[in-house]
Amino acid sequence: MHLLPIDPEESHRARMERKKAVVDAAIARADQDKGLLLVLTGNGKGKSSSAFGMVARALGHGLHVGVAQFIKGRSDTGEEAFLSRQAGVVWRVLGEGFTWETQDLTRDTETAQNGWAVARAMLRDASLGLVVLDELTYLLKRGWLDLATVLADLEARPPMQHVVITGRGAPDALCDAADTVSELRDVKHAFRAGVRAQKGVDL
Amino acid sequence: MHLLPIDPEESHRARMERKKAVVDAAIARADQDKGLLLVLTGNGKGKSSSAFGMVARALGHGLHVGVAQFIKGRSDTGEEAFLSRQAGVVWRVLGEGFTWETQDLTRDTETAQNGWAVARAMLRDASLGLVVLDELTYLLKRGWLDLATVLADLEARPPMQHVVITGRGAPDALCDAADTVSELRDVKHAFRAGVRAQKGVDL
Repeated sequence: MHLLPIDPEESHRARMERKKAVVDAAIARADQDKGLLLVLTGNGKGKSSSAFGMVARALGHGLHVGVAQFIKGRSDTGEEAFLSRQAGVVWRVLGEGFTWETQDLTRDTETAQNGWAVARAMLRDASLGLVVLDELTYLLKRGWLDLATVLADLEARPPMQHVVITGRGAPDALCDAADTVSELRDVKHAFRAGVRAQKGVDL
Repeated sequence: MHLLPIDPEESHRARMERKKAVVDAAIARADQDKGLLLVLTGNGKGKSSSAFGMVARALGHGLHVGVAQFIKGRSDTGEEAFLSRQAGVVWRVLGEGFTWETQDLTRDTETAQNGWAVARAMLRDASLGLVVLDELTYLLKRGWLDLATVLADLEARPPMQHVVITGRGAPDALCDAADTVSELRDVKHAFRAGVRAQKGVDL
């Protein structure tokens, strides 16, 4: 039973004040800095885009960035055209198109191993504040790369270097090693409604 | 019962060939072009980053881009520093920091309405190939903006203009109107382990 009339402005103010107190306390508790390992997985659209958005963020803070693209279906992507020409960006395409195009297991494994050597060099380069390993999970899932080796190289990287790994089906051990994991759930995709990949959002 | 020895190379080749056929058929069916409405929602990290990655993609294809940021907690973000200075980008910050800082319902509603007028102008500008409405869902959830008005303005936009809307708790009617919806599930976040927001990935 309410004995006092409810003032919506006052009730809003009180709710926001409580929320602010909770948020402020959480922010006060989070006081560490470290190089983060982020994993973006799941079947939904937006994993690689998210990694490229972090590249833009990093460039805005003057960080240098390494991008290793392991699987890549086309050569006319906007992210490569725009980001690879920025000062401070090292951009390496390490796959040979979508792998179901090659249909050659030995060749795919070799391509993966050579690609990882390039990624490892980035993970040993303390001048890179952010390293993106785009679509790496696919190589782990297929067994073309040894997960233990990948985890050891990630663990041995410079302490303030951030790493973003994208791709479907990230292995549990990789998620365990990560600081932040988001799973993108595919609620709906325009492709299934007959819309092809659109420049500026899909590529 | 296998009467023939299994050749792993051959089995891999056959599997990849079948996969390629399925993928090729799906690509052949998807033959429409249209301005997409994308919604990135859920509690996981990466929604706004993903939108900013699409800005980078769009710039790589020479599109012009409008970004409206409705809720913004700080002024030192990398995305603003880097993307707002690019040719072809119109960048507008429309909030007054995180809204629980203001604790004033009337003022929050006014800020939201004024912000939407700016967004609406972007949605009427056919020279913009991509419009990002960052954290818009929050204003809808709070009731500061009328959902029907927002949906009508989205519907009336130029047919080839892509729109990306980010934020937690996207309303069902917005997801129904969208072409592509990804829900980011928060599997793990470094913040909960005591790591504060890191430049280059979180801001």
